[in-house]
Amino acid sequence: MPLYTVSHVDNLRVCVVMVGLPARGKSFISHKIVRYLSWLSIKTRVFNVSSYRREEYREQPSADFFNPNNEESKVIREQANIDAIKDVIKWMNEEEGCVAILDGSNVTKRKRAMVAQILRDNRVEPLFLESFCDDEAIVKSNIMDINSTSPDYAGKPPGYALEDILTKIKYYETHYEPMDLVDEKELSFIKLINVNSQIIINKIESYLESRIAYYIMNLHIKPRYIWLSRHGESQYNLEGKIGGDADLSERGMKYARRLKDLVQKYVPNHDKLEVWTSTLRRTQQTAQFLPNPKKQWKALDELDAGSCDGLTYEEIAQRFPEDFAARDENKFEYRYRGGESYRDVIQRLEPIIMELENQENVLVITHQAVLRCIYAYFMNSPQEKSPWMSIPLHTLIRLEPRAYGTNVTRIKANIPAVSTYKEKGTSKLGESQNSAHVMAGEVITSDVANQ
Amino acid sequence: MPLYTVSHVDNLRVCVVMVGLPARGKSFISHKIVRYLSWLSIKTRVFNVSSYRREEYREQPSADFFNPNNEESKVIREQANIDAIKDVIKWMNEEEGCVAILDGSNVTKRKRAMVAQILRDNRVEPLFLESFCDDEAIVKSNIMDINSTSPDYAGKPPGYALEDILTKIKYYETHYEPMDLVDEKELSFIKLINVNSQIIINKIESYLESRIAYYIMNLHIKPRYIWLSRHGESQYNLEGKIGGDADLSERGMKYARRLKDLVQKYVPNHDKLEVWTSTLRRTQQTAQFLPNPKKQWKALDELDAGSCDGLTYEEIAQRFPEDFAARDENKFEYRYRGGESYRDVIQRLEPIIMELENQENVLVITHQAVLRCIYAYFMNSPQEKSPWMSIPLHTLIRLEPRAYGTNVTRIKANIPAVSTYKEKGTSKLGESQNSAHVMAGEVITSDVANQ
Ligand SMILES: Nc1ncnc2c1ncn2[C@@H]1O[C@H](COP(=O)(O)OP(=O)(O)OP(=O)(O)O)[C@@H](O)[C@H]1O
Ligand SMILES: Nc1ncnc2c1ncn2[C@@H]1O[C@H](COP(=O)(O)OP(=O)(O)OP(=O)(O)O)[C@@H](O)[C@H]1O
Ligand SMILES: [Mg+2]
Ligand SMILES: [Mg+2]
Repeated sequence: MPLYTVSHVDNLRVCVVMVGLPARGKSFISHKIVRYLSWLSIKTRVFNVSSYRREEYREQPSADFFNPNNEESKVIREQANIDAIKDVIKWMNEEEGCVAILDGSNVTKRKRAMVAQILRDNRVEPLFLESFCDDEAIVKSNIMDINSTSPDYAGKPPGYALEDILTKIKYYETHYEPMDLVDEKELSFIKLINVNSQIIINKIESYLESRIAYYIMNLHIKPRYIWLSRHGESQYNLEGKIGGDADLSERGMKYARRLKDLVQKYVPNHDKLEVWTSTLRRTQQTAQFLPNPKKQWKALDELDAGSCDGLTYEEIAQRFPEDFAARDENKFEYRYRGGESYRDVIQRLEPIIMELENQENVLVITHQAVLRCIYAYFMNSPQEKSPWMSIPLHTLIRLEPRAYGTNVTRIKANIPAVSTYKEKGTSKLGESQNSAHVMAGEVITSDVANQ
Repeated sequence: MPLYTVSHVDNLRVCVVMVGLPARGKSFISHKIVRYLSWLSIKTRVFNVSSYRREEYREQPSADFFNPNNEESKVIREQANIDAIKDVIKWMNEEEGCVAILDGSNVTKRKRAMVAQILRDNRVEPLFLESFCDDEAIVKSNIMDINSTSPDYAGKPPGYALEDILTKIKYYETHYEPMDLVDEKELSFIKLINVNSQIIINKIESYLESRIAYYIMNLHIKPRYIWLSRHGESQYNLEGKIGGDADLSERGMKYARRLKDLVQKYVPNHDKLEVWTSTLRRTQQTAQFLPNPKKQWKALDELDAGSCDGLTYEEIAQRFPEDFAARDENKFEYRYRGGESYRDVIQRLEPIIMELENQENVLVITHQAVLRCIYAYFMNSPQEKSPWMSIPLHTLIRLEPRAYGTNVTRIKANIPAVSTYKEKGTSKLGESQNSAHVMAGEVITSDVANQ
């Protein structure tokens, strides 16, 4: 089996340096970039500057700490920044990190010049990313979001976060210098103005940087849902076979009809919903009763099982015992002979994720492995786990991307179907009864009316 | 065979309105966008405003026509603009055009507001694309380029173009208002400053528009070559079989060794060359003697022949006569059962093209169908022709993208190989002796030293 190389041969090391006042989405964007690049197997990590403050100041830094005349706290903040950068460089040198995100505020030109200098001296490309926002409505809603859900303030008394953020904003505003298109034109930077109503991209040359810019360009923060479903049960599912291009079973057809009702009942703007399917019969048959506009994507086709296409797991275990074991061993990397690995599927799904980030009202009807990959992106699930996630048949999944994570609701159609889940170490299908497969943040609902 | 739908379900109609002084690359960018989107099966066309001038003014418009006090010529120019927009709308309504490019200068705010209005009234999204350039070196070099190679001035006496461009620039400079980030903030626009040293993206929401922005972001105009090669002759090639993952034949190995010499001899910066292969053995074996850094792409794997993988064309014609005929009939759209069509291959090659546009020194070692698709992009070859292009084994291809087309040099390694070319209507391999396969702009060279 050939080894798949995604590593950037050019050995590019990039540090994305966040710039901006508090409550401008700096941490939000940092985590999005990490999620996206990690999902693409590019080694990426956030370095949160405030966590580098010396212990005694980390816990209760508010009010006095952010008093502009407090010289001591200024020194501490500078030191935290330098400590964080040191760690960035160490991580790149020792662990072959590729993209670091320095999540701090870096609000002055002097500071940015200093950061750029240190990074360049250590052969790391600085890419500044400023979130500038003077739209009061956005800032207000961000503060509410942070106040109610940010993990930074978990366990604090109510109102604490609010006051802290406002103090911080006031403090940073005293010396905030937005990135300057003239004075700082030698720096590579991306400047977002009011989310993405205007984006300025300066001196970006490497492909990786242009890709980060493109990704950010497609992000938006309007509330929305993303709808996912596997196709209905197929003839191959009944026979325990993988791959192929089979028709739906009778129960699968029933799900296809039920799906129309579920969409009407649960999708708020179902008349504006767009439906995406793969090019295979079972997803198109599942979509057939939906009146919505449809788009077929080859990129949504099931993971290609190559020479194992059309076999049952038992047959694979018998005929290709070594492959069967190798796949169980490293399911993410294992590529079927003449077929694909999970890693391969992720590569071809990248345009889908990009378009999903940009869109607002989409139902994706696809296949088990493909759904796992899409799910892994939204749930930030690690590569070694995502191929083992359980995503049952006949279930409509609602994703609700929020500032600090994604909420999931699984709506069971209550139409029986075989299980297509294969646990590690066996060739039998079906899940053991412990529900360890339910992930944090998931809600399981049954569609009551249809029980 | 499922029908593949790429049409944008949202029925988006976009008109890219070019803005800028003469010799700023407006026509260049227009044609790039058309080439890129057409290759992706999105119906796109350029409407060149100057070609809408009434006959009597089209031929010899210089000097007096561009005199700022010439009222008549002003009216004619306005009229040409309106005629062009009318045609844009007609084309969208009657021929389901998706993206039109209005290649004019649109240098005033008043004019841009008017254009936006007419387009919106006709349910077409205006996307302004300004090329602003105050770098004199770039403008000078552009003028030289236009003077020597622009098809706009083909057949004109030497010096004519130069004078004409300078007159035009002087004229338009008198009333040029660059796009204004404040006054025009309600318009969707992309502003390029000095090629792509700075890019401003304003109010871009649809996915298609963000993709156009991303594409333009990756363009550059530095002179460069792109190097292409098929893998060396494989065991399967010898047997006339398609697909598979065979090793190189003895002659294929010889080519792999020779390739190292060819690269040293012909590639100017061969020490900085990056080599891209597919994940299949035959491309990796072809690259094995090159000392350069390598990157493996699943997206460069050969077109997947599905159930025909491993067969000869004769066997396919015998076992699946209907498929064989259907493929000859429409080779671009035909998708092998359980496999791919040329259209599918293009979709998965898109990230490769994007990265190739961005890069400067790459050798791509891949497969016949994949190479045809890459070649089709650079040569702007129509979809129905590209699957029939002849790209022989044991040949290093040099592409030189220029302002108005791509120059090609094919360097034959002079190592014999079977032909893998199948003409329409036969299952036999080999090319008939007329050399109709050489395309405009192609130069065929033999590597003399190695003959
Ligand atoms: N580009 C953006 N511009 C403005 N707000 C954004 C942007 N992206 C995300 N947000 C919003 O920002 C909020 C999250 O703020 P976040 O915690 O990331 O702020 P921060 O800049 O890291 O603040 P601090 O400096 O206090 O750490 C969310 O409500 C999110 O919707
Ligand atoms: N973004 C860009 N900025 C500046 N020059 C560019 C850009 N893109 C391409 N060019 C260069 O522009 C030249 C081609 O000019 P082109 O004929 O497209 O000008 P034009 O703006 O259409 O002029 P005119 O108004 O006379 O039609 C080429 O030399 C090309 O390298
Ligand atoms: Mg933060
Ligand atoms: Mg032009």
